Amino acid sequence: MTRKSMDSLECIFCCKDFRLNIFFPFCPECGEPLLLAYPAKKREFHPEKTYPLDIFRDFLPLSSADQSLSLGEGNTPLIRLNKIEKKYSLPLLFAKNETFNPTHSFKDRGTVVAIHKAVSMGITKVGTVSTGNMAASTAAYGAIAGLETFLLLKEETSEEKLIAAGVYGPVLIKVKGDYGELFKRSFSLGQKFGVYFVNSVDPFRIEGYKVTGFEIFLQLQREIPQFIFVPLSSGGHLTGLMRAFLDLKSEGIARKYPTFVGVQAKGCSPLERAFAEKKPNYKRICKADTIAHAISNPDPPAGNIVLKLIRENEGIIVSVSDREILEAQKILAEEGGIFCQPESATTLAAVLKLSKKKIFRHQDKIVLIITGSGLKAMETIEPSEIKIHHASLLSLESTLDKLL
Amino acid sequence: MTRKSMDSLECIFCCKDFRLNIFFPFCPECGEPLLLAYPAKKREFHPEKTYPLDIFRDFLPLSSADQSLSLGEGNTPLIRLNKIEKKYSLPLLFAKNETFNPTHSFKDRGTVVAIHKAVSMGITKVGTVSTGNMAASTAAYGAIAGLETFLLLKEETSEEKLIAAGVYGPVLIKVKGDYGELFKRSFSLGQKFGVYFVNSVDPFRIEGYKVTGFEIFLQLQREIPQFIFVPLSSGGHLTGLMRAFLDLKSEGIARKYPTFVGVQAKGCSPLERAFAEKKPNYKRICKADTIAHAISNPDPPAGNIVLKLIRENEGIIVSVSDREILEAQKILAEEGGIFCQPESATTLAAVLKLSKKKIFRHQDKIVLIITGSGLKAMETIEPSEIKIHHASLLSLESTLDKLL
Repeated sequence: MTRKSMDSLECIFCCKDFRLNIFFPFCPECGEPLLLAYPAKKREFHPEKTYPLDIFRDFLPLSSADQSLSLGEGNTPLIRLNKIEKKYSLPLLFAKNETFNPTHSFKDRGTVVAIHKAVSMGITKVGTVSTGNMAASTAAYGAIAGLETFLLLKEETSEEKLIAAGVYGPVLIKVKGDYGELFKRSFSLGQKFGVYFVNSVDPFRIEGYKVTGFEIFLQLQREIPQFIFVPLSSGGHLTGLMRAFLDLKSEGIARKYPTFVGVQAKGCSPLERAFAEKKPNYKRICKADTIAHAISNPDPPAGNIVLKLIRENEGIIVSVSDREILEAQKILAEEGGIFCQPESATTLAAVLKLSKKKIFRHQDKIVLIITGSGLKAMETIEPSEIKIHHASLLSLESTLDKLL
Repeated sequence: MTRKSMDSLECIFCCKDFRLNIFFPFCPECGEPLLLAYPAKKREFHPEKTYPLDIFRDFLPLSSADQSLSLGEGNTPLIRLNKIEKKYSLPLLFAKNETFNPTHSFKDRGTVVAIHKAVSMGITKVGTVSTGNMAASTAAYGAIAGLETFLLLKEETSEEKLIAAGVYGPVLIKVKGDYGELFKRSFSLGQKFGVYFVNSVDPFRIEGYKVTGFEIFLQLQREIPQFIFVPLSSGGHLTGLMRAFLDLKSEGIARKYPTFVGVQAKGCSPLERAFAEKKPNYKRICKADTIAHAISNPDPPAGNIVLKLIRENEGIIVSVSDREILEAQKILAEEGGIFCQPESATTLAAVLKLSKKKIFRHQDKIVLIITGSGLKAMETIEPSEIKIHHASLLSLESTLDKLL
């Protein structure tokens, strides 16, 4: 590997480097998303710093971190899930809780880096194609950076999600038509109008996700966990996390590499299918059918990148059913005190599934990436599932007496 | 002041100490809530630790901190609000963003300390009287501690709030009748049935809120800010924060004391009225009418404590209208990238109000306590306030062209 200048992008399929075109970060030859090229300088942590982008700045495509563009993202807790370990006879289980972020999802990790880039390049307009977490995140960071922010949303986006992004004052456009097409179209329109579309596989966004990986490494006292479970949709998040640990290895900071497990919802699992069939490329699926909307992408743009990284680094891709997801969401809340989106609960569902196949050893460390807050997907909890008792001030004593 | 044993409670009105009765922490003589008495040992920070309850353990009524009872609360960011400062010609403005907590509100700070106490005393049943943030927080911590958790809720509690607390698996009881009466009744029933009701003015909960104050002090490089603005309802949170800075003074760690500003909603402001009329005791108000439900308590149990602390430490109590609250909520989102509950936005509304009275000096540092996430009060945002454009894939180009 030859070290490159900071903003060189590479196609990991064609093994070629390209100069950055921030409006269109795709390989002109094969069309796959480009990633940041291996950088020129030797990299190390700066633990004397407190702001995560400063601590890990050598590993990020930023010339400097600007705290005025930060909303306090990162530094999220890694929580041991003792009760779940015991109840399900699991090895050491940890949750990296990304809901402790400004807009309560992992997206903020990537958005902050992309917005840094936009500001440093003098870009004044940003956008994203999203229906949920990414829209709110991009709108929030666009707001503090003083950038005009354009959100392109599916026609059927719920009122709740429109509000959660709309509060930050972006331009909201609901677009009728195929979502995959809209994703592609956003780049050509962005190029035409000078709007930097920070979509799911933006190379700067992906670099931002690496910070989560570095934090896990430090929180485990510089130990590499045996397994990291990540919800898998467009592939951007998993790509970033895998690159973090590749960086640690290539800089000689760590010698081992974790087994990454990408988890898809059964109702929309093009990457799990390709993995099971040992194919290098996924096939777009026709119809998605799962309650886990945030990871329901029938045509994941970084899908082939993920398949390559998983293949090269002995990772796994599995899928879990909606029933398994909802059951895991309930366990995380009732036994782990964590209320997460169903998408995040896919990780525990997959652990429980793989545990039956006896792939874990007793002393293994397993990390679940909890990507977003349950408050963002209240509609997936069936109100009838929540049992409610009724009493008056007078009858309360006898009601309690019966329940105790 | 004489230093006391760790669990001694005191009545700051009768100036008497009492042995702890965890089920009924009220003065047997005047009926006011009891607070932890001034402790026996000299106290200092332990900055070599990473877990907040360990760093500040000398100041907390815990013999030791148990990380298995933690959900990662605390260590929340203090964010400079540059854009708001400039736009409204304000001094240095900071947001202490308490939405970076496990259940996305400040309540977790207090709950974790109370649950520690419960576990150390061998208590197996806890409860709370709440309609929102406190219910979810108590349920989450009750869940990981393996305690049976009883939530007593208003008859009219919304489905959303029931779900947000119910997911953790507590016993939910909707109770018909006066909320203030229910608060009082919970203690007598708790005593009878051995249920520790960790309500808003629980003395251990209040001590937990001190950690937020200590963090602010350290985040400002051991400087005391000139002003701290806090939403004011039952009075427990403000009492805890004021006690944090009293502790710093009494231990000689800081010499100055901030001006605390308690902020009520105009539609429910019994404490602001008593403060304006210079009365030592508040009068219960008949009818609350504000969109800021979480700070709408017509009969705040720690109200007289707050009035005494504010009087003795030159604090201020102000009230702001619903219109001012919603305007401030919008400013925090659009210019600060923070989407908070309307209750939290009262702080900025009060700053803008007081700024017209020219009470701030140019170099002052002002801290707003952002108590809870906007995702918890989506109903206060009028969907019609969010402007949405419509396009098809074909018309998107001309739509963008017009908007740019």
